[in-house]
Amino acid sequence: MAPEATKPAPTGATDNLSIARAARLWPIEEIAHHLGLPGEAVEPYGRGIAKLDPTTLLNWNDRPRGRYVLVTSMTPTPPGEGKTTTAIGLVQGLQRLGHTATVALRQPSMGPTLGLKGGATGGGYSQLLPMERINLHLTGDLHAVGAAHNLLAAMVDNHLYHRLAPELDPREIYWQRVVDLNDRALRHIVLGLGGAGDGVPRQGSFEITAASEVMAVLALADSLADLRQRLGRLIVGLDRDGQAVTAEQIGAAGAMTVLLKEALKPNLLQTLEHAPALLHAGPFGNIAHGNSSIIADHIGLGASDFLVTEAGFGADMGAERFFNIKCRASGLIPDAVVLVVTVRALKYHSGRHQVVAGQPLPASLLAEHPEEIHEGGVNLLKQIDNIRAHGLTPVVAINAFPGDHPSEYAAIRDLVASVGVRAEVSTHVRDGGYGAQALAEAVAEAAEADSNFDFLYPDELPLADKMERIATRIYGADGVDFASRARERLDTWQQQGYGTLPVCIAKTHLSLSSDQQQLGAPSGWRLPVREVRLSAGAGFVYALAGDIRTLPGFSASPACTRIDIDENGDTVNLY
Amino acid sequence: MAPEATKPAPTGATDNLSIARAARLWPIEEIAHHLGLPGEAVEPYGRGIAKLDPTTLLNWNDRPRGRYVLVTSMTPTPPGEGKTTTAIGLVQGLQRLGHTATVALRQPSMGPTLGLKGGATGGGYSQLLPMERINLHLTGDLHAVGAAHNLLAAMVDNHLYHRLAPELDPREIYWQRVVDLNDRALRHIVLGLGGAGDGVPRQGSFEITAASEVMAVLALADSLADLRQRLGRLIVGLDRDGQAVTAEQIGAAGAMTVLLKEALKPNLLQTLEHAPALLHAGPFGNIAHGNSSIIADHIGLGASDFLVTEAGFGADMGAERFFNIKCRASGLIPDAVVLVVTVRALKYHSGRHQVVAGQPLPASLLAEHPEEIHEGGVNLLKQIDNIRAHGLTPVVAINAFPGDHPSEYAAIRDLVASVGVRAEVSTHVRDGGYGAQALAEAVAEAAEADSNFDFLYPDELPLADKMERIATRIYGADGVDFASRARERLDTWQQQGYGTLPVCIAKTHLSLSSDQQQLGAPSGWRLPVREVRLSAGAGFVYALAGDIRTLPGFSASPACTRIDIDENGDTVNLY
Repeated sequence: MAPEATKPAPTGATDNLSIARAARLWPIEEIAHHLGLPGEAVEPYGRGIAKLDPTTLLNWNDRPRGRYVLVTSMTPTPPGEGKTTTAIGLVQGLQRLGHTATVALRQPSMGPTLGLKGGATGGGYSQLLPMERINLHLTGDLHAVGAAHNLLAAMVDNHLYHRLAPELDPREIYWQRVVDLNDRALRHIVLGLGGAGDGVPRQGSFEITAASEVMAVLALADSLADLRQRLGRLIVGLDRDGQAVTAEQIGAAGAMTVLLKEALKPNLLQTLEHAPALLHAGPFGNIAHGNSSIIADHIGLGASDFLVTEAGFGADMGAERFFNIKCRASGLIPDAVVLVVTVRALKYHSGRHQVVAGQPLPASLLAEHPEEIHEGGVNLLKQIDNIRAHGLTPVVAINAFPGDHPSEYAAIRDLVASVGVRAEVSTHVRDGGYGAQALAEAVAEAAEADSNFDFLYPDELPLADKMERIATRIYGADGVDFASRARERLDTWQQQGYGTLPVCIAKTHLSLSSDQQQLGAPSGWRLPVREVRLSAGAGFVYALAGDIRTLPGFSASPACTRIDIDENGDTVNLY
Repeated sequence: MAPEATKPAPTGATDNLSIARAARLWPIEEIAHHLGLPGEAVEPYGRGIAKLDPTTLLNWNDRPRGRYVLVTSMTPTPPGEGKTTTAIGLVQGLQRLGHTATVALRQPSMGPTLGLKGGATGGGYSQLLPMERINLHLTGDLHAVGAAHNLLAAMVDNHLYHRLAPELDPREIYWQRVVDLNDRALRHIVLGLGGAGDGVPRQGSFEITAASEVMAVLALADSLADLRQRLGRLIVGLDRDGQAVTAEQIGAAGAMTVLLKEALKPNLLQTLEHAPALLHAGPFGNIAHGNSSIIADHIGLGASDFLVTEAGFGADMGAERFFNIKCRASGLIPDAVVLVVTVRALKYHSGRHQVVAGQPLPASLLAEHPEEIHEGGVNLLKQIDNIRAHGLTPVVAINAFPGDHPSEYAAIRDLVASVGVRAEVSTHVRDGGYGAQALAEAVAEAAEADSNFDFLYPDELPLADKMERIATRIYGADGVDFASRARERLDTWQQQGYGTLPVCIAKTHLSLSSDQQQLGAPSGWRLPVREVRLSAGAGFVYALAGDIRTLPGFSASPACTRIDIDENGDTVNLY
């Protein structure tokens, strides 16, 4: 994996699928070997995929840990600004500069892949391979999370049915079921029907597997023993006396752990340029922290000069949780942050254009208007400030799109230079690692400086105050309005000893505020928290500040109606 | 893998788990290499497990096909008579005689493994490895079947929600959802609740994944293209005009096929003595045909001297469907049949003892009573006759248990000799392949003879007459009583062109009759068929002749409450 100084010869392929098909997959053992991983820790799982054994790979060498780089973004447009392609392009760029670099990403959820065109394997010449396996099943981790989650649900209803102690209150069961599909008909159900032999009738619901607290636990556990303990702390509901009942009390935590043993092993894959990629865990970015696993980051930092990971949504969402939930749990200190922007997102935040996911961009957005960069730039400046609130100065990555105008790039550079930040254009989608070299140089330089990283709030700050601090310092709100029931619950948890947990606020990702119509950097608003919930296993409290849908539905013409095999048995229309 | 003439030194381990743990796993590539499989068709999937690519391995060599051996049994007692251990022991015995032999088995369902002590990997010195992976997830095939099944269900409800054409009648939707767990609370549900944005309210249910028609399709498909066609033919319900609506019309069959691409590849594993084992598909043995996949058998027959496979339940159930459904679909001709018996089952069929699954055998059953062998032997003679009805003479395998009496073995030999059948005692559980050598010799000899195999009924026989023939010729009934609605449906399907399909009768497996209390060889009874259903994708019609539960529930103290990890991270109480 010596760096190559020249731009690679294009394969002629232009769309994601053709590029992926034209790529040559290296044996995954070779990728692992280049990382220096001991062979006994690497279990191949089909072509180009291996699972890595964390018990062997945590602290297996005495090499200095690599630099820890987070990729986040300004507040995105509905189709997103390319954090995943940037993270992939960046490791390819770092590799070209002679560094070893590993990218750590979340595993995609199958439901959305089947619903909308577009998997989660990057794009252009910054993709992961093998695309089809990544988008569907991979090594079965999401299925294992679903099985563990639903085992607990089945055991809860079995507990109710056999009237085991502690006796559950059927009106206060919080643990729902999950499915890794878009299936709106399961959002609200009545179960336990059919008569005395078929259970206890009650209301229930399904959520998508990525929304499972088990997924958040998998992402935050740092060992099998820690996983076992976290699963035991999951709260399933209340007993007849109003006391919380845990998975430990239901007797499910051991079997759930055993069901998750393989899933706890990170998946090793490769980028188009054969840089190592770790795909592991995929918690939701609203009701959970939206970051890939701690275990994968540990392994990658132990084996490479750079570990580049991505946090979900904009810097106010995923990066804030990366810092205050994930890094708090892992003890790892980030060395550099990449803030991804696009010309179109900056112009969108000027408020002059309508962008709808799945529809072509409006012509007005594509015309040359550098002045709109400055109008929309208030969002970027606020997100830069949000990173600085944690003691780090980001590098801005301008993710290049065809049709961008040089004057607009110049406007972005001017804008961020005014606050002492460096911006680099990255053409990784078109050019792979070659196009990300300038960005890679800037990131390597930024990561060399000593990290002044700090949390936004200390453990001791009360739960409600933590939420206030995020709302005012990060979102730019004037304060938080708690529903009275939410305030009571926070007080109760505070008294019960949960007050030292970090917090996670579920709001729209399309605005810094809780109203997705408010672009730029909204001010003069208050964050409404209508409900709070305790993820005692994952180890955070989350607040609902908006309508968060945890089980999507299919459109009238979902992608899955077009996915098929051709006469050669090759998959079509999955990308 | 040269034969060994001597009994192996015992490892000292006696329980299944200790024996499995003490075993040395060979690299799966070595097992594949011994079978002569081309390396590019073998994809390792974790330690000791590989998937085999059927597109490469169907007709890849010009070596003569191996002998095709079915393992079935007399009517079993509730805990079963050891067909799986006998099939595993037999290939180990054949291997000791210098033959190459592969065993092809069904994949276990996770729900029952978590519910009751006892996985599905054989026992003693006739086990499959690695036990833990086989019992939980394996390579994710069952999860893929569940995902494909539930994708169709979600698309059906989405079709209803968006009122797409053809317009479904919400009262006539047959396609339910599945889960690979014991979850009685999901047997009967109301879904689509929550308001206009959340679907169309209707009744629904969940079944266990093994009961999915998708699982039967996976087992019967002989190529990816055949899988695609069968999935397209799945009937999901009726439209407003009462016409059947298929998965093809819903637009789901292509995506379902893509979801099942990896699952269509058989899983290669090994026995304790490193004989190759193919685990692939696991359809229910009552509402489906209860046999492992056609593709695995094709691959095994192409690579070994003997392919030994097992059919679910007794010879009246699994073997009858093996002959008339599976062999009809595959075109493969069986060469030999092993009929497994035990002393305890023969004595049980005398009607003098009560045997309950999960409880110790009654003392009376363990006492020496060779005369009871003759009393219960009517069941064995009838099952021998059922094999002969298909042109084959079975070899009887006496699966030895500690405490069996030689006088009882002699009684079995005398009994079957009276109808010209050979019986061999097999101690494969205690001694591995060494203990199955006599059986292996008898089977090899039987398989040398020309096969006179024939189906029980021709394609052209009307559906109702096929059921009559099975009931009278195999079960020993005087005839069939069809509920009027069942008769009407059979007539309709006959007119619609489904009349050439084979049939499958779902009844208790604990009696030759439809009443599990009737032991031996009941006569003077009629088979009640209360309902019939069309599995248009799998390609058979099935009849319900008894209460068939398609989603189990957990007991008040299920195995999953004891499964856990110990301080070393090793799994405990999973066996």
